[in-house]
Amino acid sequence: MWLFLARQEMFDAQEMCLLLYVSDPSLFLVCLSMHPRHPGTWKMLTVAMCVALLGCLQAQEPQGHVSIILLGATGDLAKKYLWQGLFQLYLDEAGKGHSFSFHGAALTAPKQGQELMAKALESLSCPKDMAPSHCAEHKDQFLRLSQYRQLKTTEDYRDLSKDIEAQIQHKGLREAGRIFYFSVPPFAYADIARNINSSCRPGPGAWLRVALEKPFGHDHLSAQQLATELRSFFQEEEMYRVDHYLGKQAVAQILPFRDQNRKALDGLWNRHHVERVEIVMKETVDAAGRISFYEEYGVIRDVLQNHLTEVLTLVAMELPPNVSNAEAVLRHKLQVFQALRGLQKGSAVVGQYQTYSQQVRRELQKPDSFHSLMPTFAGILVHIDNLRWEGVPFILTSGKALDERVSYVRVLFKNRAFCVQSEKHWDAEQSQCLPRQIVFHIGHGDLGGPAVLVSRNLFRPSLPSESWAEMEDRPGLRLFGRPLSDYYAYSPVRERDAYSILLAHIFHCRKDSFITTENLLASWVFWTPVLDSLAHEVPRLYPGGAENGHLLDFEFSGSQLSFSQQQLEQLVPGPGSVPVPSEFQVLRAKYRESPLVSAWPEELISKLADDIEATAVRAVQRFGKFHLALSGGSSPVALFQQLAMGHYGFPWAHTHLWLVDERCVPLSDPESNFQGLQAHLLRHIRVPYYNIHPMPVHLHQRLCAEEDQGTQLYAREISALVTNSSFDLVLLGMGTDGHTASLFPQSPAGLDGEQLVVLTTSPFRPHHRMSLSLPLINRAKKVAVLVMGKMKREITLLVSRVGHEPKKWPISGVLPSSGQLVWYMDYEAFLG
Amino acid sequence: MWLFLARQEMFDAQEMCLLLYVSDPSLFLVCLSMHPRHPGTWKMLTVAMCVALLGCLQAQEPQGHVSIILLGATGDLAKKYLWQGLFQLYLDEAGKGHSFSFHGAALTAPKQGQELMAKALESLSCPKDMAPSHCAEHKDQFLRLSQYRQLKTTEDYRDLSKDIEAQIQHKGLREAGRIFYFSVPPFAYADIARNINSSCRPGPGAWLRVALEKPFGHDHLSAQQLATELRSFFQEEEMYRVDHYLGKQAVAQILPFRDQNRKALDGLWNRHHVERVEIVMKETVDAAGRISFYEEYGVIRDVLQNHLTEVLTLVAMELPPNVSNAEAVLRHKLQVFQALRGLQKGSAVVGQYQTYSQQVRRELQKPDSFHSLMPTFAGILVHIDNLRWEGVPFILTSGKALDERVSYVRVLFKNRAFCVQSEKHWDAEQSQCLPRQIVFHIGHGDLGGPAVLVSRNLFRPSLPSESWAEMEDRPGLRLFGRPLSDYYAYSPVRERDAYSILLAHIFHCRKDSFITTENLLASWVFWTPVLDSLAHEVPRLYPGGAENGHLLDFEFSGSQLSFSQQQLEQLVPGPGSVPVPSEFQVLRAKYRESPLVSAWPEELISKLADDIEATAVRAVQRFGKFHLALSGGSSPVALFQQLAMGHYGFPWAHTHLWLVDERCVPLSDPESNFQGLQAHLLRHIRVPYYNIHPMPVHLHQRLCAEEDQGTQLYAREISALVTNSSFDLVLLGMGTDGHTASLFPQSPAGLDGEQLVVLTTSPFRPHHRMSLSLPLINRAKKVAVLVMGKMKREITLLVSRVGHEPKKWPISGVLPSSGQLVWYMDYEAFLG
Repeated sequence: MWLFLARQEMFDAQEMCLLLYVSDPSLFLVCLSMHPRHPGTWKMLTVAMCVALLGCLQAQEPQGHVSIILLGATGDLAKKYLWQGLFQLYLDEAGKGHSFSFHGAALTAPKQGQELMAKALESLSCPKDMAPSHCAEHKDQFLRLSQYRQLKTTEDYRDLSKDIEAQIQHKGLREAGRIFYFSVPPFAYADIARNINSSCRPGPGAWLRVALEKPFGHDHLSAQQLATELRSFFQEEEMYRVDHYLGKQAVAQILPFRDQNRKALDGLWNRHHVERVEIVMKETVDAAGRISFYEEYGVIRDVLQNHLTEVLTLVAMELPPNVSNAEAVLRHKLQVFQALRGLQKGSAVVGQYQTYSQQVRRELQKPDSFHSLMPTFAGILVHIDNLRWEGVPFILTSGKALDERVSYVRVLFKNRAFCVQSEKHWDAEQSQCLPRQIVFHIGHGDLGGPAVLVSRNLFRPSLPSESWAEMEDRPGLRLFGRPLSDYYAYSPVRERDAYSILLAHIFHCRKDSFITTENLLASWVFWTPVLDSLAHEVPRLYPGGAENGHLLDFEFSGSQLSFSQQQLEQLVPGPGSVPVPSEFQVLRAKYRESPLVSAWPEELISKLADDIEATAVRAVQRFGKFHLALSGGSSPVALFQQLAMGHYGFPWAHTHLWLVDERCVPLSDPESNFQGLQAHLLRHIRVPYYNIHPMPVHLHQRLCAEEDQGTQLYAREISALVTNSSFDLVLLGMGTDGHTASLFPQSPAGLDGEQLVVLTTSPFRPHHRMSLSLPLINRAKKVAVLVMGKMKREITLLVSRVGHEPKKWPISGVLPSSGQLVWYMDYEAFLG
Repeated sequence: MWLFLARQEMFDAQEMCLLLYVSDPSLFLVCLSMHPRHPGTWKMLTVAMCVALLGCLQAQEPQGHVSIILLGATGDLAKKYLWQGLFQLYLDEAGKGHSFSFHGAALTAPKQGQELMAKALESLSCPKDMAPSHCAEHKDQFLRLSQYRQLKTTEDYRDLSKDIEAQIQHKGLREAGRIFYFSVPPFAYADIARNINSSCRPGPGAWLRVALEKPFGHDHLSAQQLATELRSFFQEEEMYRVDHYLGKQAVAQILPFRDQNRKALDGLWNRHHVERVEIVMKETVDAAGRISFYEEYGVIRDVLQNHLTEVLTLVAMELPPNVSNAEAVLRHKLQVFQALRGLQKGSAVVGQYQTYSQQVRRELQKPDSFHSLMPTFAGILVHIDNLRWEGVPFILTSGKALDERVSYVRVLFKNRAFCVQSEKHWDAEQSQCLPRQIVFHIGHGDLGGPAVLVSRNLFRPSLPSESWAEMEDRPGLRLFGRPLSDYYAYSPVRERDAYSILLAHIFHCRKDSFITTENLLASWVFWTPVLDSLAHEVPRLYPGGAENGHLLDFEFSGSQLSFSQQQLEQLVPGPGSVPVPSEFQVLRAKYRESPLVSAWPEELISKLADDIEATAVRAVQRFGKFHLALSGGSSPVALFQQLAMGHYGFPWAHTHLWLVDERCVPLSDPESNFQGLQAHLLRHIRVPYYNIHPMPVHLHQRLCAEEDQGTQLYAREISALVTNSSFDLVLLGMGTDGHTASLFPQSPAGLDGEQLVVLTTSPFRPHHRMSLSLPLINRAKKVAVLVMGKMKREITLLVSRVGHEPKKWPISGVLPSSGQLVWYMDYEAFLG
């Protein structure tokens, strides 16, 4: 009964798959995996993949009949690509043992539908190398096998199924399977899927495959709903979600190229060598005629969430040992999604061509006052936070009404060379100072078609010679800053349309060119937050075409994107942001008899950061070290970022960092104050490990247990390292209840007495805290209290009037005995 | 008696300087500094600076007589630059109250010397805008004031001094001061200095200034000796060490430019925006005729150690509030030196033009078999490890017999933009995608003179309009990849020779254009190790001129530099390196009945790193985390580097790092194993703070005190986090005495028993250690023992023969009870 062990490299080393020959004509694949805790025992793996393999194995069974039902047979996509793709499939596969029937389906009544379909089929063309007479013959045969059907009711589906079965029986054939291609709007999916599942499945032993066209939802929630719905009708392995970009020849070549040039790329394909990755799809057309769709989706959902994201994962993922193992490819793709840094509003710039709103008003009958906020152009900066790609910008861009039609992925390498000779004498093949890049040219542009380009000063790439050939030079043609002759340039031996490739893949059960549910949802998880945050953003208007000039150019700093040019005027009225005075001023005054610095938030943080640096520099000059105690919470985050990015002279190597207070959670908990410090400051600077002093809230695997004496431990550490236990600077905040550090009203711990560090109870979760005591804080040489935001207005007013009442308002007890106290309040907190 | 408070910004905020008017004509400057421990009390600052200021203040006193003695008055430098500089000084300063006399001095007898000097003075020229008749008149006056003197003996110096005094008295003048300019070989310095000090100092109230020409030593030691010697004759403030590069107009403009464009540069001048800095001096001439000097110094000592390093500090230093405060500039320069990452052999590439050795044989009468190893070309990669510059490559290059003569500093900024429009339409002023650079063009090249260039897409710079003017466009001229018209380009209104500028600075006491002793020694500290390590390096031979092609191009990876092209043949026989087989192989065998992997070191480390990553990936997949215990010492360093730079898929975020053993020193001690881990691994990767587990050798400010129970603490941490206390992988080494971890022969601790972590005693310093015990090690799932180097050959042989004798050879006790043991030995350790 055992047939054979499946190919080892398709599975993890500790797994094995057995093919069980159960009964003709079915095969069962059983996968076993070594149990992790009990080596030697095996458990059965999920069978999803096994069943998928089953379908594939059967596809190679001879003599079956395949019915292909094209839903939406008279629509645009069908006319433009799908019928041609099916004809190509027929040309490629007929005569290899399978028989075919093609069923064009739509809601249109039979006669009218028949006519429309006939029109669509008129323009079918044969490959260039086929003799016209031969072509005509094949076309005739194909037309004879193709019939129109109205598919509206469950009855219709049942009839179709019966007809197929009758036809097969009549001809004495075996049914191999059925392919349903959904070229219909997504709102129609559910009905069709239900009907197929209930009334049109093939009999046992034959497979069902349904091909679905995007959009697959509108955001994460709707995508999930759609996926759940579809899953109630189809198995995962029956569904082929089409992203036609994956059928584009240059895109399909990315993984094989990385695989076949592993040796050359191994050392290059990482953050040390890659300067940036650009993934670009520019269009010249606008959305006219498709507004009802476009106004609902926009450029990000239409292009970036799917096409460009798929390309991104192909470029960025860790290469599996076998790049045609669909399961391994999927797993590695999902790892890329996991490593993507979350997008925020600041990670995007959006634009809209100037006539768009007018088109919307016209096509959707909107009033003259209507202005759309839907982006027709977007630039997105993606960061991948893993060791391979950390810090490398992935730039995704797409737009309509731009100056040219072109799409490509460009990997630009860092220039790591110095060329001694005057640049007049640089040689494209030898000079390491000329740009080094690898381009997967997806289509159009000056090249006019797909190509793979590798700068000659990189390496001579290996491409499959049966399908890719070196291009001839085209003098005068410059690409990405260099003449074509500077590249090893390859184009496909035979250009093939993406849909004909994907139809062949569906037929051959090659699932690696399609979007699985997991992949789709991971992509929506990534894109939904930025779509939400952009929903009310006013896009920059652009005139369209070459007139755009530099208007849409954008640049990045950290994770932030912005247009390079200041916008001259706002042409579309939209939900604007609060006007901000252009001239900032820092106000100096007194508050509770101590100096007060007040300003708009940005200026305030900047001033505080400057003051901290000055204090640090002075302390290090004087004593060789600087002891800084920091509070947690949200206000200091901006400060941490400012210190990390704008203060290069800060003597971090001589700075000791202490915590003012901590929540009784593990240090690695996102709630931990230390985590905030880690994420926003520590990872950007170089403070020696042993100068970092987290509070010991987690000793002996317990949280703030009295017996573990964490407070005493921290107090001893302070006494040992900080002269007189007098910090150089303590940064505090103030809560709306007047608490500071983790010293809360009506809770006596830490307000006076000898203890330097105390356990306290917060009215907020998590309740248990560790905190520096008020007496310790008041020994500091300098105490800065940072108070920001409207919410603090009331307590700020109140505290300005009270005396020394730390039991009611712990903040009122902050008064350094011989040090200095300075208040930093933004205008909203101070002036309301 | 109090005169005035000196300008505040010249001093730190906590210092104040008072000028005390003591007696005519002397001023005294007293600087007070707030005592750091006792605020309110003041202590007097070092007076070096005060005295320096004193000299400067007096220089502005009117009516003094200044004697300038040019030593080496008939030499090349004097003929070419110095007499002209002195004439210029005379033209600029005569008539402003001072009187002058110029004394050309040399060893030559009076008559002959007089003639030689007269010849040198013949070619003096006036500024272009001076009328010829006027010029002739001035020249006549200057010649009348200039006399030749033979200066050989102490007598000669004494006579000179007497003559000066007599002349001054005769004319009823007051002596302001004397300048001695040493244009003589360095071996003559000591004698001359002694004579000046003993016999030729001016009287009280007048200053002495001596100008010294490089070379200032040959390495750190000789420079220190020379400095000590000179200091026994002169005060620091009396010495003006000339680096004529600091007098070059474009170099002298670097700090003022940074100062006047602070606003624009503030956000740009750092690692986030600067791509690289190139500091370049290319020459077309070779060393012919100067071989006796050159063969002793070479290009690094001749150009890089001084000129290019000075430029580097000007570009890199933190900008003091007042850039003409010499003391602050010096302090900030020294900070740059402190932050420089040490140079190693790998940080340099060196070359030698092909005819050099022949020239040496000819000029120094060497035999035909003589080949020099002196570099005439060098490329150096400098890294500055501070927050402003970390990761930015500073490339220093100079060479003789290159294709062009040019020198410049080029600051290239990162491209942070994406330009949406096709590049055909990019505009030099607006497009942020065209190169953005700031160039201080020092001289020669296609521009033909000094200039400051700022890309138009950066900002319009501010330069002092009285001395710098915008250049006219020169169509067809391309610089650094762009036409001149792409830059805001400025050149000096009046080109001035460096020496005339520096002579004026000496006269005006502007010390910021000269090299102080501290600065000089800091530079030698930086350069000496690489000079030492290059001493036996065979330089790459190059044909010279344009024929060099790409032969000298070099590239960097991390801190390592290498020529871009493989060398085709070695043309000069030199002390070669050991030949290494070109085909590496990894040998698999058994050692002590466990698997052995053996290879050349690089392959071995690479294999071990691969194995560790595979183990880590598997552990994380299975259990969600990976517990790795690492040893200290030198062998793992290469492994750490390999893991840090070559293993992007390593699941660091889920890895816990433990120490196998530790020395009882503070964690921050360079001797600490943890330090090695920090320097070579931790700083390059992102392991969360709380996954790092240093051994607690330093509790309660004591080292490995029994009472602090550090071993129990570590054992508890292991028990709590590591399932069954069974590490996923333990990396061990083996000492020449058979020790492993910190378990030593003849020392029973940790060899058996229940204890997981133990304190041990090492025969080597530091004696006290903490170590995992053998029983704990043997609980690991995998133990890898890394053994490298010839020194280990003997013990490897011995241990291969012994049984289980951990008391004699602790390594022989390593035998995981249910885990796997693998030996990794390089060929030298295994095969000898």
